[in-house]
Formats: sequence, C-alpha cells, structure tokens
Amino acid sequence: MATVHRLRSGSPSLDPMVSLVQGDMNAVNAVILDRMQSEIPLIPELAGHLIAGGGKRMRPMLTLASARLIGYTGTRHHRLAAAVEFIHTATLLHDDVVDGSDLRRGRRTANIIWGNPASVLVGDFLFSRSFELMVEDGSLKVLKILSNASAVIAEGEVNQLTAARRIDLGEDRYLDIIGAKTAALFAAACRIAAVVAERPEAEEQALDSYGRNLGIAFQLVDDAIDYVSDAGVMGKDAGDDFREGKMTLPVILAHARGGPEDRKFWKDAVEGRRVSDEDFAHAVELVRRTRAVDDTLARARHYGQRAIDAIAGFASGRAKDAMVEAVEFAVARAY
Amino acid sequence: MATVHRLRSGSPSLDPMVSLVQGDMNAVNAVILDRMQSEIPLIPELAGHLIAGGGKRMRPMLTLASARLIGYTGTRHHRLAAAVEFIHTATLLHDDVVDGSDLRRGRRTANIIWGNPASVLVGDFLFSRSFELMVEDGSLKVLKILSNASAVIAEGEVNQLTAARRIDLGEDRYLDIIGAKTAALFAAACRIAAVVAERPEAEEQALDSYGRNLGIAFQLVDDAIDYVSDAGVMGKDAGDDFREGKMTLPVILAHARGGPEDRKFWKDAVEGRRVSDEDFAHAVELVRRTRAVDDTLARARHYGQRAIDAIAGFASGRAKDAMVEAVEFAVARAY
Repeated sequence: MATVHRLRSGSPSLDPMVSLVQGDMNAVNAVILDRMQSEIPLIPELAGHLIAGGGKRMRPMLTLASARLIGYTGTRHHRLAAAVEFIHTATLLHDDVVDGSDLRRGRRTANIIWGNPASVLVGDFLFSRSFELMVEDGSLKVLKILSNASAVIAEGEVNQLTAARRIDLGEDRYLDIIGAKTAALFAAACRIAAVVAERPEAEEQALDSYGRNLGIAFQLVDDAIDYVSDAGVMGKDAGDDFREGKMTLPVILAHARGGPEDRKFWKDAVEGRRVSDEDFAHAVELVRRTRAVDDTLARARHYGQRAIDAIAGFASGRAKDAMVEAVEFAVARAY
Repeated sequence: MATVHRLRSGSPSLDPMVSLVQGDMNAVNAVILDRMQSEIPLIPELAGHLIAGGGKRMRPMLTLASARLIGYTGTRHHRLAAAVEFIHTATLLHDDVVDGSDLRRGRRTANIIWGNPASVLVGDFLFSRSFELMVEDGSLKVLKILSNASAVIAEGEVNQLTAARRIDLGEDRYLDIIGAKTAALFAAACRIAAVVAERPEAEEQALDSYGRNLGIAFQLVDDAIDYVSDAGVMGKDAGDDFREGKMTLPVILAHARGGPEDRKFWKDAVEGRRVSDEDFAHAVELVRRTRAVDDTLARARHYGQRAIDAIAGFASGRAKDAMVEAVEFAVARAY
C-alpha cells in the first residue's frame, strides 16, 4: 500500500521539525554565535540583534531536517547550516535598508537603531563570513550551489526593485521574483544536505524541489496574510505590504479580476496614493470579493503539495513526517 | 652585484605595468563584461556605469603583473582577476551608499543616479558573482584567500564607520583600518597569482607583502592628496575628505602636533563644524606648518620601499621593473 501524503486541514505545527533537529540546531547556534564575533564590537552587536531576534531559523532547520531524512550522521552540515543562516541574515539587513523598514518581527530594525551604513556593512561582513564557512567545509559543489543561490537572490531583489509600484506586474514575473528572492535559498538549504551526505543527484534534486516549492508556498502565504485582517500573525501587521504599495499576488489577482473602478483603486494604492486605514479596509473588501486571498492560498497549497510529493520517494519516518507537517504548517498559517 | 631597487624621484608611471598586462587585461575585461550580464536590465546598466567609469583596474592589473613576475603562462588568473574587480566594484557601490557620496572619478555615483537600494542590491549581486567566478576556477586555496579578504574588508569598513568623526583616532587604528579596507584586497590580488601558478608559500607571502604594502602606500597618498591644494589629481577634489570630517593620517598628525587652538579647530572640523572654503584653507595651512602631509607621504614611501623589497627575490625583468615603477608611481602621485 502506498502512503499518499496529502495536505490536510487541522492544526499542523512546526514543532515536530523543531524537536527533530533540536540537538543539531544547538550545534548550529554555537557556530553562528562563534562566527559572528569580531574585534569590531558593532558587528556582533548588530548581527546579534537580528540573529537573536526570534527568527525560526527556518533555512538552517531545513538543512538539518533534510540531513535527517537521508540518514546523514556527520556534522559538516552544522557549519553549512550556519552559512545559510548568515546569507539569510545578510539579505534581511540589506532588505530592511532597501525597503526603509522600521520593524521586523515586532522589533525595531537594525537600520533604525544603528543606521543604514552599519546595516549595509555588517550585511557584507556576514555574507563574507558565510563564504568563509563554506570554504572551511571545502566542498566545491556546496560552494557552487550557495554562491549561485546568492547571485540568484540578489538578482531577484533587483528584479523586485525594478518591479516596485508597477501595477502591470503579472503573476509570472511575480513568481520569478519570489522564486529567486525566497525559494532559491530554501532549495539550496535542503540540497546541500544531500551533497554532504554524498547522495545521488536524484536525491539532491528531490530535496531542492522540496525546498523550492516550500519556499514559494511560504512566500505566497506571507503575502496573503497581509490582507487577512486578523493582525499579528507571524509578528507581521496586516496592511504593511498594502501601505508600502508592494506588488504581491493578492493585488495582482484583485486588480486583474476587478472592474475599472477597482483597477483604478489598486493602481492608486500601488503608486502610493492610498495609504489610509479606510483604504486598507476597502482593499481587504476587494480581495475578499474577488477571492484574491483565497486563490493566493490555493496557489500556495499547490506548491505545498508539490513540495510534499517531491520527497515522496524517501523512506517514511520521523524526519519525513516532520517535513510534511512543516509544509502543512506553512500553508495553514493564514487560517 | 646586487641590484638594489630604491624609490627614486623623477616621473614614474603606471604605463609599463599597463602595457605589460595589456593582452591579459583584454581577456579580463571580456570576463567582466560577460559576467556582469543579467536578465534584469538594471544590473548591467548600473554595474557598467561604474565598471566602465574610468577606473585603472589596479587590482586585477596586480594579479596579472604578479602572474607575469613568476612566469605563469596559464589563463586561470583572468577569471580570478575579474572576481577581484567584482569584489572591488561591490565595495565601491556600498561605500558610496555608506558615505552618501555623489561623485566618484568626476562622475555622478550610481547611488545618485539609481538610488541607494539599487546600489546595495547590485553590489550584492556582483559580490555573489565574484564567488561564482572563484568557484568555477575551483581552487579552495584561492577561495579561502578571497573570502577572507572580503570579510576583512567588511570588518575594516565597519571599523572605519565606528571611528568616523572621532578626533581621538590614533595612527595605529588608522593603519588597521586602511590595512583592512584597502590593503587586504591588494594583497589578495597579488597572492592568488602565486597560488594558481603553484609557487612555494614564500613566493605567495612575498607577493602578499608587495600588494599589502603598496595598498597602504596607495591609501596614504590618497589621503595626503586631499590636503594638497592642486586639485584634480586622480579625479579627486582637494578638501573632500576634510569637508566630510574624515579621519585620515594628515588630520591625525596635524592634530597631535598642533597647539590647543589647532586641536580645537581639528576637533570642530572632524565633528562637522568646519566646512567652509576658509576652513579648508586654514586646514591646508595647518598641515603644511605641522609637516603633516609631508610626513604622511614619508610614511607612504616607507611602505612603498617595503613593497619593493618584498619582491627583491624575484628574477629581474620587465615584470619586476613595471611592479617597482608602479610603487614609485603610487607614492609620487602627490608631488
């Protein structure tokens, strides 16, 4: 009898994955703390603010869980998971500068506390440090995967920047952007586990696909949450994306499905002329009426199901169950 | 009879080094142009502005000249020299954001034309690309040298940021800063030539020392030029550093050697309260009276001589002559 994992409703949780990797994560955290040190006090101070700031360590967790899934018993992935987290942290620091953000996960951002220059430079430091960690590991294959992911992320960020406030951004280009800026690192984080474990190419690809599809689902749900009025989910306030005129799938769908008046509203919003609470309330009403959030979440479930199917070929067990439930958790967050 | 190379006066030039590496540099430029491409048009547009903007390609030139010095006949260093230039370009893009600069080499900076966000993100892209180039080359030793140099540069930049506008910065910490933010990449650019040529560790170290000392001399002269009223040298206007309150060696020496009134003037200047043309004229007078520029240049000659002596052990010939003259050129620029 085949076991068919399907997305189910209920209240899935990240807890099984968190406990699956708990021991390994302690080792990763030790590497992170050790390698963010510097004789220049501002570096650990600023990096520590973000790194200790309550993130879920989703990406290193995926490296660790993937390693479990394929039965890897070494420790090389600890250093590499830390490298992945450093790339992510560097990206967040630069993102907050680019977006002029003042809050992340409910705390003041580093750029607000220490200024943009410090955030740019400490981001560069962490990025360099991540490569030092990879070089210490010594796998050119891992280096290739992660340097490519980094270039793709940066390209995706520039793509997003040039797409900013453009109401004519279509779903395809939007998917290109989130595929690059979010999903590429999820994919790489999973894939490198198969590389250090010296598993066949097909397993590398399967883990890459799991991570990539999960990353897309994750970002889609994040974008949907912004239009779900129950604020405070994931430390993000509803309406933030809307007030910043961010082009996300709910906006793309609501604009495409709306009448002339609605389209004008969305164009004005994206171009920065609709930022009041009433405007946001109207936006929520429009996405509801056009089913734009529902269908953004339906898209997320599609990618989530692909993530689950990508690892169907691996042996059943605690790791696989945790990885399946992590996907279910990712797509269920908005309910 | 030993040939003792000494710094001489006269009008040394960079031309011998430029013609020494001309053929190789065409290959490097081809790699640079090819690898700064992207489907996102803003990336080659912005990167091209800076890369085509009249820089001397000093760092890749050093890789190429060093390879000549040791008789390397392969082509691996072309890709690596391009990687070095990408690291440098990424650093410049971020530096201009950090400093809020509006001019570089007499042209408007990328951050002024395309905005800070684009400069930050395209810098990240070039930085990632540089690692991709290194990974393609495949030498873990080169990767280690350049990832370490990158981390040291970023650390030096943060160090400089936290030292900004602090009149109590001493010469030692100033040397630490320029050793990290400027000299580390000069050193790495030279050293990697010995690595690809598989030369003994002692030659690696000699080239590292040549590059590091040249880099320090280069930066010292740059800092001195700001207080030499004959503007326009190297496309830099006299007084720029002064008006930005930058802590450089001329300021450190003039402050240390001045009386109470002079010290107050320098403190005010560094803290941003002295930015007029009269203030700058007074500053030039003070650095002259205290011999602060002369002695900054004397320090530069010291490091220049060390650079020259570092390569004393290599065979004489066109490459060595060009590398010696490049040092003479670097320290003679301010006269």
